[in-house]
Amino acid sequence: MFLWVRQEIQTVSREIELSIMSESHIKAEDLHRVEGVRVAAVQAGVRYKNRLDLVVMEIAPGSTVASVFTLNAFCAAPVQLSRKHLKDSGGQIRYLLINTGNANAGTGQKGLDDALSCCANLAAQAGVPVSAVLPFSTGVIGENLPVDKIVAGVPNALSTLGDNWLDAAKGIMTTDTRPKARSVVIDCNGRPVTITGIAKGAGMIKPNMATLLSFVFTDAGIAQPLLQQLLKGVVDQSFNRITVDGDTSTNDCCVLVATGKSGVNFSEADLAASSDFEDALQALVKELAKDIIRDAEGAKKFVTVDIQGGADTGECLKVAYVIAESPLVKTALSASDPNWGRILAAIGRAGLHELDVGHISIHLGEVCIVENGTLATSYREALGQAEMSKPAIDIIVNLARGSAREIVWTSDLSEEYVRINASYRS
Amino acid sequence: MFLWVRQEIQTVSREIELSIMSESHIKAEDLHRVEGVRVAAVQAGVRYKNRLDLVVMEIAPGSTVASVFTLNAFCAAPVQLSRKHLKDSGGQIRYLLINTGNANAGTGQKGLDDALSCCANLAAQAGVPVSAVLPFSTGVIGENLPVDKIVAGVPNALSTLGDNWLDAAKGIMTTDTRPKARSVVIDCNGRPVTITGIAKGAGMIKPNMATLLSFVFTDAGIAQPLLQQLLKGVVDQSFNRITVDGDTSTNDCCVLVATGKSGVNFSEADLAASSDFEDALQALVKELAKDIIRDAEGAKKFVTVDIQGGADTGECLKVAYVIAESPLVKTALSASDPNWGRILAAIGRAGLHELDVGHISIHLGEVCIVENGTLATSYREALGQAEMSKPAIDIIVNLARGSAREIVWTSDLSEEYVRINASYRS
Repeated sequence: MFLWVRQEIQTVSREIELSIMSESHIKAEDLHRVEGVRVAAVQAGVRYKNRLDLVVMEIAPGSTVASVFTLNAFCAAPVQLSRKHLKDSGGQIRYLLINTGNANAGTGQKGLDDALSCCANLAAQAGVPVSAVLPFSTGVIGENLPVDKIVAGVPNALSTLGDNWLDAAKGIMTTDTRPKARSVVIDCNGRPVTITGIAKGAGMIKPNMATLLSFVFTDAGIAQPLLQQLLKGVVDQSFNRITVDGDTSTNDCCVLVATGKSGVNFSEADLAASSDFEDALQALVKELAKDIIRDAEGAKKFVTVDIQGGADTGECLKVAYVIAESPLVKTALSASDPNWGRILAAIGRAGLHELDVGHISIHLGEVCIVENGTLATSYREALGQAEMSKPAIDIIVNLARGSAREIVWTSDLSEEYVRINASYRS
Repeated sequence: MFLWVRQEIQTVSREIELSIMSESHIKAEDLHRVEGVRVAAVQAGVRYKNRLDLVVMEIAPGSTVASVFTLNAFCAAPVQLSRKHLKDSGGQIRYLLINTGNANAGTGQKGLDDALSCCANLAAQAGVPVSAVLPFSTGVIGENLPVDKIVAGVPNALSTLGDNWLDAAKGIMTTDTRPKARSVVIDCNGRPVTITGIAKGAGMIKPNMATLLSFVFTDAGIAQPLLQQLLKGVVDQSFNRITVDGDTSTNDCCVLVATGKSGVNFSEADLAASSDFEDALQALVKELAKDIIRDAEGAKKFVTVDIQGGADTGECLKVAYVIAESPLVKTALSASDPNWGRILAAIGRAGLHELDVGHISIHLGEVCIVENGTLATSYREALGQAEMSKPAIDIIVNLARGSAREIVWTSDLSEEYVRINASYRS
C-alpha cells in the first residue's frame, strides 16, 4: 500500500555511524520543510548573550498534537501549564514557545504566572487564545524566568517564521555541543510525506516514560488519539531507552504534530495494514535519541547495552540500566578498559529473582568474554581491548532464562563530565 | 547494670569530626588488644611488591562468630567457601585468611578450588580442620588467585601473630588511602570489655544488606544466635547506610567475633536490660562505615543525607539513595555549588507514590533552601554557598508526610574518582 523512499534516512544513519562521537554535519538543506509548520529562533538574552535561545513554532489550524511529559514529581511550571493548555484548548494548539537558559522549575506559583505571561503575550500578538500556546523551558533550575526578555524577543520571532529548522535546533540547546535534527521524506503512493524533528539534551538524561525536549512534525494527517498512541510507542523505544547519568529532568517533554497538509491521511486501519510510516517515524526518533547519547556530556563512547534471554522486559531493563548507570562500568568504558568484572558485578546486583549466574554470557561486540558465568576459555585480553577501544561499544548479556530482549543506549563517564557538571548550574 | 566508660570512643569521634577528610591519625597504641585474638599482616606479593597484602587472624577455641555477606548474585569464591565452612564447622572458626590485590571473583570452579587450597594449607600448618578457616579476598575481579604466593606467605604470618591491628588494617586495603580501625574499652561493673575492628573500602561501595570487608572483635562472651542478631542490627544502621557509587561488590562481608575471654558474658536478657554494649558496638561500627566514606575514592566531601517526615523507612531510603547516587548532585557537591535544583529533581524522580511536592522542605545544614516545594524567601545564595563549602555537608529533606526518618552517608563525585577508576582494574 505504501512505497517509502527510505534511502535518505538510511544515508543519514550511515553517515552518523561513520562519524559517531565526532561533530555531526547536519546542514540546513537536509531538513525538509513541513507544510503547515513555520519555525523561528532568535537571541533573547535569556541567560547568555549572542546565542539563539528563544524558539517559536507556528502550527496550522486543524493540526493534531500528541505529547508526553516528564514523570518527575517536581515537574516544571511550563510542563504543568502545557498540560493545562492541551486540556483547555481541546488540543487546538497553534504555537509552541520554547526557551533555553532557564528551566522555570522549582519556581512555585510565580513560575506558573511567568509561563502564563509569556504565553498570553504571544497569544495576543498572534491573535489566538492563550490556551493555544504551549510553553517549554530548559536550562537552570530554580531561578525565575526573565519574562521581559522573552516577551521582548517574541515579535522578532513571529516576524521571521519560516523553515529555520537548524536555527530552531540550535535555539533549544543547553550543554549540547551540536544541534540535533533529523528529517525524512517518504513516498506514499506517489505523494511525499515529510517528518522533521529536533531534540536537545546532553545531561540529566534518563527520560523516565517521557523524554527530554523534542519536537517532531509531519505533514501527514493523523487523528489525535491515534497520534498520541503512535508517539507513546515510538518514545518507549527511543527516548525511554537512553541514559546518560540516570537523572530524570523536571522539564522533559516530546511533542509530535501532524498537520495533514500533505493530503495523506492515516487511519488506524492504514497503520495496521502497513507499519511503514510508524517504522520511519520510529527510525527518525530513535536517531534523535541516539544523537543525544552521541553528544552526552563529556562522552567519548556510544554504548549499546543489549540484554537478551530475559524472563521479561522488566528484568532486561533492570539489568540494562544497572550496567548503563554503573559509575564503575562507565569509567572503565571511558578508559577503554575491558573490565568485565565490573559488568558482571553490575548484573549481580540488579536484584533479579533466583538468577543462576552459571548460565550467563557476556559479549563485547563479537568477542565472548564470559560464558557460563565465568571467563570464556577463548578470551584474550587483547581481543577485549580491541573492542573497548572502538568509539561505539556493544555490551551484550545473555541471561539464558527466557526470550525477552531490551536495548538501552548510554555513554561513558569521563573526567570531562565531572568538569562540565561541577561548573554548569543546571 | 552496666557502667560504660564512653569517653574514649567519644574522644575518637570528636577527633575525627575535627579532621574529617584529612588524614586520620590512628596510632597502633589506640587499638586495644582483644584477649583471644591474634593478628598478623605480611607481604605476600599478591599483586604488588612491598606492601602488606596477606592477613591472618587467629581466634581462640570456643569463640562465637557472626557474619553477613554480599547479596550480589555473582558472589566471589571466598564468600561461597566461607559460607560453606561456617556451616561445615558448626561455627567453630579458628582462622580468618584475608588477601588483598585479588578478589577471586568471577573465577568459577577454579576460584573455589584455589580458595580451598589456601585454607587447607593454613589448616594443615595450624593443625585445625579446613572448615575452621574462613577465606576473604578483595581486589581485582576476574583473575585467578595466586595460590602459591599466598601459601608462601602463611608461615611468616603464623609466626608473627600478635596485636598487630594497625598492620592488619593496612593489609586489607585496596584503593583506600589510609587504614581504618576503631577500638574501645568499656567498663562493665569494674571489668573491662574491649571491642576492636578494622575495615576496608573506598569504591564499589553500596553494601546491599551486607557489607564490604570488616572484621570486628570483642572479648565479651555472646552466644552465636544472639551475636548474629546483634551484627545484623548494627550493620543495617552503619555499613548498609553508606554509598560511594551505588556499586555493590561481589566480595562484601563483615565478621563479628566474640571470644568471651573478658569473663563478661551477655545473655539476651542482659542486652535487653541495657543497650549499652550494643550502643558501643553500633557507635564503633558506624565510625568504621563513616571512615569508608571519609576515604571514598576521589572524595573531598563527607555528606549526610537525612530524610525526615517519610511515610515509612522504605521511601526515606529511596529518596536518600536517589540523592546520594545522583551524579549531578555529587558533581555539585564536588564543586561546592549549592545547586538545590538538582536535589529537588532527584527527589522528584525517586518514584514516591502521590508525592505532594508542595510541602517538601530542604535544608543545607541550618540553612533552609526550599520550603513548601519552592525556593525559601529567606534563602540567599551566599548562605548556601557557605554550607556547601564545608568539608562535611548535611542535606536534610523533610517529606512532610509521616514520621519515618533515615540517614545515609555518601561522598561527592570528583574528576579524581574518574581518574582512579579509569586506571584501577577493580
